[in-house]
Amino acid sequence: MYSVGIDIGGTSIKSGIVDEDGNILAQSAIPTVPSKGFELMVKEMAEEVDKLLSDQKISIDKVKGIGVGIPGIADNNSGIVRVAVNLGWRNVDLRAEFKKYFNTEIGLSNDANCAALGEQRFGSGRGFSDVVFVTIGTGVGSGIVVNGKLVAGNGSAGGESGHIVIVYDGNPCNCGRRGCWEAYASATALIGPTKKKMEEYPDSIMYEIAKAEGKVSGRTAFRAMDAGDVPAKEVVEQYLDYVASGLISLTNVLHPEAFLIGGGVSHEGDNLILPLKAKIDEYVHTSGMYPEVEVKQATLGNSAGLLGASALV
Amino acid sequence: MYSVGIDIGGTSIKSGIVDEDGNILAQSAIPTVPSKGFELMVKEMAEEVDKLLSDQKISIDKVKGIGVGIPGIADNNSGIVRVAVNLGWRNVDLRAEFKKYFNTEIGLSNDANCAALGEQRFGSGRGFSDVVFVTIGTGVGSGIVVNGKLVAGNGSAGGESGHIVIVYDGNPCNCGRRGCWEAYASATALIGPTKKKMEEYPDSIMYEIAKAEGKVSGRTAFRAMDAGDVPAKEVVEQYLDYVASGLISLTNVLHPEAFLIGGGVSHEGDNLILPLKAKIDEYVHTSGMYPEVEVKQATLGNSAGLLGASALV
Repeated sequence: MYSVGIDIGGTSIKSGIVDEDGNILAQSAIPTVPSKGFELMVKEMAEEVDKLLSDQKISIDKVKGIGVGIPGIADNNSGIVRVAVNLGWRNVDLRAEFKKYFNTEIGLSNDANCAALGEQRFGSGRGFSDVVFVTIGTGVGSGIVVNGKLVAGNGSAGGESGHIVIVYDGNPCNCGRRGCWEAYASATALIGPTKKKMEEYPDSIMYEIAKAEGKVSGRTAFRAMDAGDVPAKEVVEQYLDYVASGLISLTNVLHPEAFLIGGGVSHEGDNLILPLKAKIDEYVHTSGMYPEVEVKQATLGNSAGLLGASALV
Repeated sequence: MYSVGIDIGGTSIKSGIVDEDGNILAQSAIPTVPSKGFELMVKEMAEEVDKLLSDQKISIDKVKGIGVGIPGIADNNSGIVRVAVNLGWRNVDLRAEFKKYFNTEIGLSNDANCAALGEQRFGSGRGFSDVVFVTIGTGVGSGIVVNGKLVAGNGSAGGESGHIVIVYDGNPCNCGRRGCWEAYASATALIGPTKKKMEEYPDSIMYEIAKAEGKVSGRTAFRAMDAGDVPAKEVVEQYLDYVASGLISLTNVLHPEAFLIGGGVSHEGDNLILPLKAKIDEYVHTSGMYPEVEVKQATLGNSAGLLGASALV
């Protein structure tokens, strides 16, 4: 049997046919054009899927179902997308619309949840049934998988781990509240402390790095640390402690087998993964009888969403 | 069909026969005597269960199984109790030991998880499938139920929500780390701020309350607030904000249908529940399209553990 995954992004909509081992047999991409409106967008997705299936000579009765990843709030129970700002969708019945074209199971979830399921099933989380996927980039997002199934919360409103408060009354967050993990652990949150440290240390290598990149970014301190810059190392160490604080809070609540780390910052690789693992180990070992929690870099990259969507059905 | 619940506490071991609606048909209690050792303790529990069943003329083939709540780390997958300090148990195979006496399903979990399941199935959470039970007393404990099933984490090490960090580098916690929710939201954590405020306001009614009770406790500020004391109200308001901070973090992660609040502080009733509900509402409404989260006072009291244990099978 096969599954179809559709990953709706801000610029393109990817569709793919996936086998039970997570191999993408065929895929295609069309541009995301919200001005076409909901019904036409779904019609074009259905046409893409039809084309892929006929190219691969796979009949629809060999397809378990179609899973769709959405950049917004998508409730798999009702089949309704409550809101997807960038698509201009609000309270649209995605399941019913797809059912006009396909007599098969239709699953939907938000993009971070799909990526979590994709990584758990086919990527860095293969072999684990309980994982938390954390994507660290412009913001901090997450998806929770327990017993191989998404834990999306009532109305699919859970998995917003970026907004747990780690610093009571702390830095303002984009969400309107204060002290959220995202306000300390996102790539964006690295920029302020990097600039501040640069002001304190006018000789820091961070100046060269920033000049070469044209700006101070979430990478500046990491690259300067690699080049032996001590102030940059301090910035990174403080940052990693904030990242770890949130991961340890999630460990207390969910104690997954593994954290799977994706997003732009995950490309720091061992610079990020090893210190985070050490900090979580310290917590787990202090508390005594608890099993270890692995920390792994996500491996599927841009395919995680499509593969995870296919695993919704 | 019936189930048997056993709730092992620090002073007594309660056993009961429970029907499918959560009615306790018969129950008994024996003292907890750890010095008897693991095997004899289980033998005596088995005898209690035998007695209850024969008194009620219920044969063992009418019993779905026996669930046991443990004050410690109990892993329902393996059947092993990793550690129960107050019982002197360490890595004992509880399931195998019970199987010597009963050819039926044996479930086990820790006491907070059992209470969570009991409240969800038969108490304040009836009608909800996704709840987080939070017990606020000397410490802060929790149990998570998703789709009517416990989410206990790997090695049953999850559900320790009292140790999510809400104040980075904040007050020391009993767990050895800093800034945990428990260090701000437990009844114990109310004592320090109450004393501090009393020093600032020598005319506060809190002095009378404390004198009548013989000490400053987690109740002092609440009782003085009820009597119209303004400084006490400030203490309570700050405290409620800390409690709400943790609940909102858990909402971000899990978005349950309801929080069920138990433990000593829950007896404050509407003084506690209504402001917490208002603070969570404010968060949920700000974030837009998310469903509300109910906040309810736990109703089963001391029976929650026994009922929840019976629901493990």
